[in-house]
Amino acid sequence: MSTRSLITDEEASPEVLAVFEDIRKTRGSDFINNFWRALAHDPRQLKAIWGELKLVMGPGTIDPITKEMIYIAVSVANGCSYCIHSHTAAAKAKGMSEAQHSELVSIIGMAGKTNHLVTALQVPVDDAFKV
Amino acid sequence: MSTRSLITDEEASPEVLAVFEDIRKTRGSDFINNFWRALAHDPRQLKAIWGELKLVMGPGTIDPITKEMIYIAVSVANGCSYCIHSHTAAAKAKGMSEAQHSELVSIIGMAGKTNHLVTALQVPVDDAFKV
Amino acid sequence: MSTRSLITDEEASPEVLAVFEDIRKTRGSDFINNFWRALAHDPRQLKAIWGELKLVMGPGTIDPITKEMIYIAVSVANGCSYCIHSHTAAAKAKGMSEAQHSELVSIIGMAGKTNHLVTALQVPVDDAFKV
Amino acid sequence: MSTRSLITDEEASPEVLAVFEDIRKTRGSDFINNFWRALAHDPRQLKAIWGELKLVMGPGTIDPITKEMIYIAVSVANGCSYCIHSHTAAAKAKGMSEAQHSELVSIIGMAGKTNHLVTALQVPVDDAFKV
Amino acid sequence: MSTRSLITDEEASPEVLAVFEDIRKTRGSDFINNFWRALAHDPRQLKAIWGELKLVMGPGTIDPITKEMIYIAVSVANGCSYCIHSHTAAAKAKGMSEAQHSELVSIIGMAGKTNHLVTALQVPVDDAFKV
Amino acid sequence: MSTRSLITDEEASPEVLAVFEDIRKTRGSDFINNFWRALAHDPRQLKAIWGELKLVMGPGTIDPITKEMIYIAVSVANGCSYCIHSHTAAAKAKGMSEAQHSELVSIIGMAGKTNHLVTALQVPVDDAFKV
Repeated sequence: MSTRSLITDEEASPEVLAVFEDIRKTRGSDFINNFWRALAHDPRQLKAIWGELKLVMGPGTIDPITKEMIYIAVSVANGCSYCIHSHTAAAKAKGMSEAQHSELVSIIGMAGKTNHLVTALQVPVDDAFKV
Repeated sequence: MSTRSLITDEEASPEVLAVFEDIRKTRGSDFINNFWRALAHDPRQLKAIWGELKLVMGPGTIDPITKEMIYIAVSVANGCSYCIHSHTAAAKAKGMSEAQHSELVSIIGMAGKTNHLVTALQVPVDDAFKV
Repeated sequence: MSTRSLITDEEASPEVLAVFEDIRKTRGSDFINNFWRALAHDPRQLKAIWGELKLVMGPGTIDPITKEMIYIAVSVANGCSYCIHSHTAAAKAKGMSEAQHSELVSIIGMAGKTNHLVTALQVPVDDAFKV
Repeated sequence: MSTRSLITDEEASPEVLAVFEDIRKTRGSDFINNFWRALAHDPRQLKAIWGELKLVMGPGTIDPITKEMIYIAVSVANGCSYCIHSHTAAAKAKGMSEAQHSELVSIIGMAGKTNHLVTALQVPVDDAFKV
Repeated sequence: MSTRSLITDEEASPEVLAVFEDIRKTRGSDFINNFWRALAHDPRQLKAIWGELKLVMGPGTIDPITKEMIYIAVSVANGCSYCIHSHTAAAKAKGMSEAQHSELVSIIGMAGKTNHLVTALQVPVDDAFKV
Repeated sequence: MSTRSLITDEEASPEVLAVFEDIRKTRGSDFINNFWRALAHDPRQLKAIWGELKLVMGPGTIDPITKEMIYIAVSVANGCSYCIHSHTAAAKAKGMSEAQHSELVSIIGMAGKTNHLVTALQVPVDDAFKV
């Protein structure tokens, strides 16, 4: 359950509907997931975050599947269940294979482990890594 | 400073030296970073973790630069300074460009932000994301 | 589901009931939320934590709504779902407006983002910030 | 040490200098802290984040000192040392008293404790908290 | 709900069944918990993680109940609900008393609190703690 | 560097000195570590936290070394460098052997890994674990 209600299309203001329209057009799907419906209480924030996400996850020097895998990695380490579900679904929709998913999960687990080992031992940064 | 000393080559047991030798050969470099020197107090653990890392970060369905970027993403969210330094250095050594690094940092920042927004609002997982 | 049962009024010892009584009186409400019922297995701990919370969240140099917003901020970053729900409810009960809630969520999201950017880039602390 | 260099005024492009100029004017100080110098490798990101921060931390329904305290709270829970230093300095510059700082730290510590207790006991959210 | 399906005994490959068999034999119970069923999509990973867990949690210089309590402590700080449930159940099965559980929870809460206080105040490490 | 100064014995008020005296007596050592000196700006908080720590870490159903190991485990997962150093020093002072330290670090690393795997796969809690 959310700490505030999810805005339906019927309840949405024209500004919110305009953003929903752009999400639908950009994604080629009628589906608006709950994240946007929760943000829609604050139309300015909804618009800003959608604009930022479209830019950051749009065309660039890193391919779309990799972008989703990076997003999943951060979300797992931060323990954001919703984000893991939504970006795993997005990665699969963009073509992430079962084998890649397994490998992604292995890397995340390995990083989780060595992060903890390094922190437990308080390993000092090597001079060689300094910029 | 570490919570235990860093094992030098001179102090290393034959088992430890064998792992160091494999690290050097695999990486084509004489350099052994502090993480391995801190682990070397426990030769069995050193060997197991090196073996696991070699496997997880070795050839698979995800390319080497992407693997390092995923590693960085987890390490940032976990706040592991050493890991961020070592894997950023590794990613650059494997060919991550400045533009890719900037884009990686943007994605990590964006994920950090939406993870916090979703958690603050306690957005429920959409049925559409269920496996 | 909890890792231990929730103590009902019927199951509560006299020591526990005395704390429940003080919670009810302090809050002007008959409702005892699950946190206290889970702690009630250990009456001494229940009493100590309630006493500490009453002191920390009571009158001081920071106003009651701000205190709840700080509590929410920590709970979001720590991913404590229960705490987010209970302190958002408390903040609203104390008068936090919808606009303030939106603004609080924006600040938490912004902080989440810059925390990740700073950590990814390992920005060194400026001398000017040193005490 | 940073994972990339800090851009000095001499190295800055005209776009970067324009942002630096706005930071100086907005804050009424010549000082540009390291966060902006690290971001300056990517002028578009620098401009976007500065613009977002100015908006989020600018006038609204929450007062400036409270905004900084919320920022500190998130940064502590995320373990971002740089952010804690910079926002504690900002809060003091905006008038946070020593007594308020002490009280802020107490609330953060209390929240850290109850977040851990609730998570350890996996306390279920009360129906009364549901929106 | 999981981001991938849980493998039943009927769906399991011979390699997966061999690991399940070893889990059953080692634990003296027919029950295979969901973690292993989720990992079973990748038999090599399943086998490796089970082998590692058996080794790490097996006989050594730290007693079995303490090992489970350490596991719980990490899982609470990382906010892993599943892990808290499974290792609390394991600790109880191995003999952790109610009083020990209460005391464990108190220590975790205390550590959560002082971790936040130390981080908020950015306390520098004493020379006396340096190895 | 701390976000506030460390109180020396010369600067300490009588109330602070009374707590320092109790720390010295309880530990049988003249050394007061920086945590207490940073807290000493707020004598009431200093006294309360020292009292709570003495109680929580004092005699009970869990032995002193185990208590320190649990404290280290939480501190590693929370990334509190100061806390890791101080409690590792305390654990060694109370008799934690090198072999136990290695084993503790292994368990923490293993938990860090499975926490990440479980979270990435969003494994649902088994009915068998429900209280």
